[in-house]
Amino acid sequence: MIKVGIFGGAGYTGVELLRILAGHPAVQLMAVASRDKVSSKVSDMFPSLRRRVDLNFVAPEDDAFKNCDVVFFATPNGVAMSQAAGLLAAGVRVIDLAADFRIRDVMEWEKWYGMAHAAPELVAEAIYGLPEIHREQIRGARVLANPGCYPTAVQLGFLPLLEAGIIDCGHLIADAKSGVSGAGRKADMANLYSEVTDSFKAYGVAGHRHLPEIRQGLSRMVGGAEVGLTFVPHLAPMIRGIHATLYARLTHDINLKALQDLFEARFSGEAFVDVLPAGSHPETRSVRASNMCRIAVHRPQGGDTVVVLSVIDNLVKGAAGQAVQNMNIMFGEEEGLGLDIISVSP
Amino acid sequence: MIKVGIFGGAGYTGVELLRILAGHPAVQLMAVASRDKVSSKVSDMFPSLRRRVDLNFVAPEDDAFKNCDVVFFATPNGVAMSQAAGLLAAGVRVIDLAADFRIRDVMEWEKWYGMAHAAPELVAEAIYGLPEIHREQIRGARVLANPGCYPTAVQLGFLPLLEAGIIDCGHLIADAKSGVSGAGRKADMANLYSEVTDSFKAYGVAGHRHLPEIRQGLSRMVGGAEVGLTFVPHLAPMIRGIHATLYARLTHDINLKALQDLFEARFSGEAFVDVLPAGSHPETRSVRASNMCRIAVHRPQGGDTVVVLSVIDNLVKGAAGQAVQNMNIMFGEEEGLGLDIISVSP
Amino acid sequence: MIKVGIFGGAGYTGVELLRILAGHPAVQLMAVASRDKVSSKVSDMFPSLRRRVDLNFVAPEDDAFKNCDVVFFATPNGVAMSQAAGLLAAGVRVIDLAADFRIRDVMEWEKWYGMAHAAPELVAEAIYGLPEIHREQIRGARVLANPGCYPTAVQLGFLPLLEAGIIDCGHLIADAKSGVSGAGRKADMANLYSEVTDSFKAYGVAGHRHLPEIRQGLSRMVGGAEVGLTFVPHLAPMIRGIHATLYARLTHDINLKALQDLFEARFSGEAFVDVLPAGSHPETRSVRASNMCRIAVHRPQGGDTVVVLSVIDNLVKGAAGQAVQNMNIMFGEEEGLGLDIISVSP
Amino acid sequence: MIKVGIFGGAGYTGVELLRILAGHPAVQLMAVASRDKVSSKVSDMFPSLRRRVDLNFVAPEDDAFKNCDVVFFATPNGVAMSQAAGLLAAGVRVIDLAADFRIRDVMEWEKWYGMAHAAPELVAEAIYGLPEIHREQIRGARVLANPGCYPTAVQLGFLPLLEAGIIDCGHLIADAKSGVSGAGRKADMANLYSEVTDSFKAYGVAGHRHLPEIRQGLSRMVGGAEVGLTFVPHLAPMIRGIHATLYARLTHDINLKALQDLFEARFSGEAFVDVLPAGSHPETRSVRASNMCRIAVHRPQGGDTVVVLSVIDNLVKGAAGQAVQNMNIMFGEEEGLGLDIISVSP
Repeated sequence: MIKVGIFGGAGYTGVELLRILAGHPAVQLMAVASRDKVSSKVSDMFPSLRRRVDLNFVAPEDDAFKNCDVVFFATPNGVAMSQAAGLLAAGVRVIDLAADFRIRDVMEWEKWYGMAHAAPELVAEAIYGLPEIHREQIRGARVLANPGCYPTAVQLGFLPLLEAGIIDCGHLIADAKSGVSGAGRKADMANLYSEVTDSFKAYGVAGHRHLPEIRQGLSRMVGGAEVGLTFVPHLAPMIRGIHATLYARLTHDINLKALQDLFEARFSGEAFVDVLPAGSHPETRSVRASNMCRIAVHRPQGGDTVVVLSVIDNLVKGAAGQAVQNMNIMFGEEEGLGLDIISVSP
Repeated sequence: MIKVGIFGGAGYTGVELLRILAGHPAVQLMAVASRDKVSSKVSDMFPSLRRRVDLNFVAPEDDAFKNCDVVFFATPNGVAMSQAAGLLAAGVRVIDLAADFRIRDVMEWEKWYGMAHAAPELVAEAIYGLPEIHREQIRGARVLANPGCYPTAVQLGFLPLLEAGIIDCGHLIADAKSGVSGAGRKADMANLYSEVTDSFKAYGVAGHRHLPEIRQGLSRMVGGAEVGLTFVPHLAPMIRGIHATLYARLTHDINLKALQDLFEARFSGEAFVDVLPAGSHPETRSVRASNMCRIAVHRPQGGDTVVVLSVIDNLVKGAAGQAVQNMNIMFGEEEGLGLDIISVSP
Repeated sequence: MIKVGIFGGAGYTGVELLRILAGHPAVQLMAVASRDKVSSKVSDMFPSLRRRVDLNFVAPEDDAFKNCDVVFFATPNGVAMSQAAGLLAAGVRVIDLAADFRIRDVMEWEKWYGMAHAAPELVAEAIYGLPEIHREQIRGARVLANPGCYPTAVQLGFLPLLEAGIIDCGHLIADAKSGVSGAGRKADMANLYSEVTDSFKAYGVAGHRHLPEIRQGLSRMVGGAEVGLTFVPHLAPMIRGIHATLYARLTHDINLKALQDLFEARFSGEAFVDVLPAGSHPETRSVRASNMCRIAVHRPQGGDTVVVLSVIDNLVKGAAGQAVQNMNIMFGEEEGLGLDIISVSP
Repeated sequence: MIKVGIFGGAGYTGVELLRILAGHPAVQLMAVASRDKVSSKVSDMFPSLRRRVDLNFVAPEDDAFKNCDVVFFATPNGVAMSQAAGLLAAGVRVIDLAADFRIRDVMEWEKWYGMAHAAPELVAEAIYGLPEIHREQIRGARVLANPGCYPTAVQLGFLPLLEAGIIDCGHLIADAKSGVSGAGRKADMANLYSEVTDSFKAYGVAGHRHLPEIRQGLSRMVGGAEVGLTFVPHLAPMIRGIHATLYARLTHDINLKALQDLFEARFSGEAFVDVLPAGSHPETRSVRASNMCRIAVHRPQGGDTVVVLSVIDNLVKGAAGQAVQNMNIMFGEEEGLGLDIISVSP
């Protein structure tokens, strides 16, 4: 059994980790920290976990974490970087669901996240946990940077095209739509029910923190060359789900059948990427509560613009589910263990 | 392995049965019928089932059903009653998620459902599948009448009070609210997104088909005496969930603590009824996608009116989940097998 | 022109007042106060008001308010009671949309609202502004207590029955459902989109602040006799709307036709109460954004329980619209002036 | 008074026309046709119109229409083209809210709409009713083709850029999101509440009927040159609203300030186009129920891709509101008469 601890158990990615780990056959849940909630029952905060998670919140300093095999940080940005070293010293591996270890260029990170980095040496060591690309390195990771939600959907969608070298890398467009849970569980007027229901808007057009992460990932796919990306995130009135609509200009003449084959070949054997038949329009609800990414590729009107539709559940493949997938890889378990959750539909 | 067939696999209770049964460790899914969809893939209709259910729809006449141990009818009212006899003759047990076998008084049934009953003799044999009351009889059932969604929430909520004989049975009130999926998956203008979102209404105040079913169930709890019930269903703008708010006049002086004890004692040991702490307000989302019923009891202002709040997921404990719970009992499996699904929250 | 000021213009009732008053032909909008927003443009906070309200927020102390004919308080409970006297002294009439002047029994008010009352003498003077009952007194009001949202829907629904003296006043039940905007515009985790969407719950079953207000109102209808009321509010996943489902035991034999006539007669001539045909089920969306209350009366199964369905928009007839209706009466304008807004549907 | 008739009054654009026209000071509503509903009260179908529209539905053949000054067709595609000639002969002007007269190339229209055109000669005469471009021609129109919802949002957003000749016309991208009411009021399983809530998807990526309409409009802006457009519509879980996110490559070096000035200058004086301050993100709710189009322009990261955000209410500026705006122009009324509706927020 893998002994697991969670920091930041009171947020949406925290409760989602608990939902998944409580049903994971190879996991023993040791401790859940939430500084504000110490001693209260986890299931008092999340009644959905009654009878399934029988733990009280503890403080982050609790000794229990030192005895874990792995600790998940479902905390705000900036927490994991200051606490990871202590855990590593005790032999505990770390999976950060926030952004602390995602950007290799520490100055770039500091610019976008507005704080000094507390552990640059761990950034150098950290492995970026997108299993469909970095599976081998993940196995040995001590510090695992779990990808962001937008970056997961966008990178998986562009991956086959960029690896094949058939699109103009200088002018990629990612028009992405997210459910509201992506904003986390904090008292924020902007995310009140009455503010976001029955409405739709873009945000962060001038620059969103996931932009450098996506750019870094896309650049790796083309051997480190620079890529030009316009990334426009939107807020959609739904709880979960990301729908990325990706646009790229084809530099090679390739018909839709060949594009479809390219995507199917690239993701052949992947448990959590499902390439839909040609002509499909994936719905975010088809991945709700599951760890699946569903992708469809289009070439509208036979023109030179390729359109990729990529959907995930932001809290699962975009956060907690992918973190557990990474944990499975790190500990030599079957990659999909505990993740065979079927989407809830309707 | 229990060999299972499903009639009516293209509706919401059908896909929910598939979601649950696809993950059930003791079930082998043999065939899924949908007359309109013969030969098409089940997962083409429900992409959430891709890679999990690899069957094509067959016709209801398909021989595969004769080789099943049990067949679920997730069909409209009136289908199971005309097909059950043939299956029973072939040694197949039947679980009907519709209303054909729920009402013991056939004339009453015919009045409310507006058709002649095709198999009155099976009504006499059928067992009403509310496990918390009829567990023993369910074990031996050949024909199982799975309770309606409202009836499940309302009966479980009134049960301890009626069994204890401490309320006026002549003037019970059940004010119930349901998500839209309760109306099923059919092209009906009234259930269009733009018709029901951001709105709330009562319906069927003059008389709803679940009224005689609930009245019959409540009457059994008091030894067959007549009960007076005002039942007002409402449509709430959400996909899943039933919230029943129940009102009864206390005929005995009993304080809130004793009421709480009464409920906890009655449901002690029940895997799928969770009595919340005194003062709680269960949310339907706390049972979303799970087979749980959560209940809280109140006595506002210390008056003589007791208020019970009872929530279920109408598609799970109110339909497909309870049907699988009944199947487990009928086949001697552990009652909760395959039903350890944690609610999806948020 | 009536010179109007608004305190608390940054909340939901504030913006709703602005929406209505900006289109009111006899109103001149003088000043809008919001302590946190002084000097910022009102329309920066509410882009829906761009080109329609060209004012900057001012401080509550601004002299402009002294020159108004009337000031609306769309502020939290406790604000109006401390500021009304100053305005009255300057000859400004006051309409409070909060609860400060609603409860005649000051000790009762202090118990429910948890603070000492700052102006008990104004409570004695204040007129409770439910025009369908108190129209005559409203004309001369200096201090107008605008009714709460639940109290409006519940009182209008019970009114004909109580005045006619045909129901048991000792055991009334009001099962009420409200949209989320009723909780106001404040950063509160409980009202985040991801917390309330696709879910339903009761709250405040043990005791809600609107209970004493409703009880007081119902009691007046029966000449001051005590009434017994069980009031259970619920939160529905929609922005606006209240649906009150009211239950009472008939003490007189009266058929449905006579009940219908009773309601139609009582509200004959009322511009903002619409009694629907017998058998109707009013939807909250049919009053969305309008000042209408729609009511239907039922007697299910011909039993002795009468069921009244009463719907309003909580922000209009339940707050800002009714306040403007009261203003029209107070200033001798046509009662519906500026309130001829047709519900937005769908 | 303008004497007005409506064909197709039972759909969403029909009821929206009724909402607007019922409050229009210069309109006399003569007759509303709906073949399926003849003789039933309009307000029975739409209780929101009780006390405001006191008409019964009549048949399309009713003589009343011949006595109108103008008839609105809120009917499915293909109806107006077969009935317009008769009305025109009687001296009645026609405003079609469907697509019959929008595409000047009849063969192109027949390809996309899958039927033979019944009145090609009227296509030649018809005026395309986007007032911000064609105001002068609209004045004299006998047959007015009211623009589609997506085309309105997309054309207004691209207009200043194309007229200024500063973008690459060969590779425009319009990523558009629509509320569900855009699909109309018809019993269609795909638009059931439980199918679209809490989910998001693209549709029609291979080709949507609004594509040729948009392409034609954009082409006119550049003197008839061909434009290359990738148009991807999406379905968002909300009732009303279109959010178009537009992407174009700048061919001239122009900074954000100059872009902002360009947009403000182009729409200066327009009552129903509101250019937001630089850096804004318009929300669809800010135009809900109103005839406004709100636009913001961005140049992310200072790159060569310009991003325009354009929002409308699909049923108002995208349908009924714009139709009334056109009527006002055609009959010499003030353009905004009856359209001073403030968005409902929240």
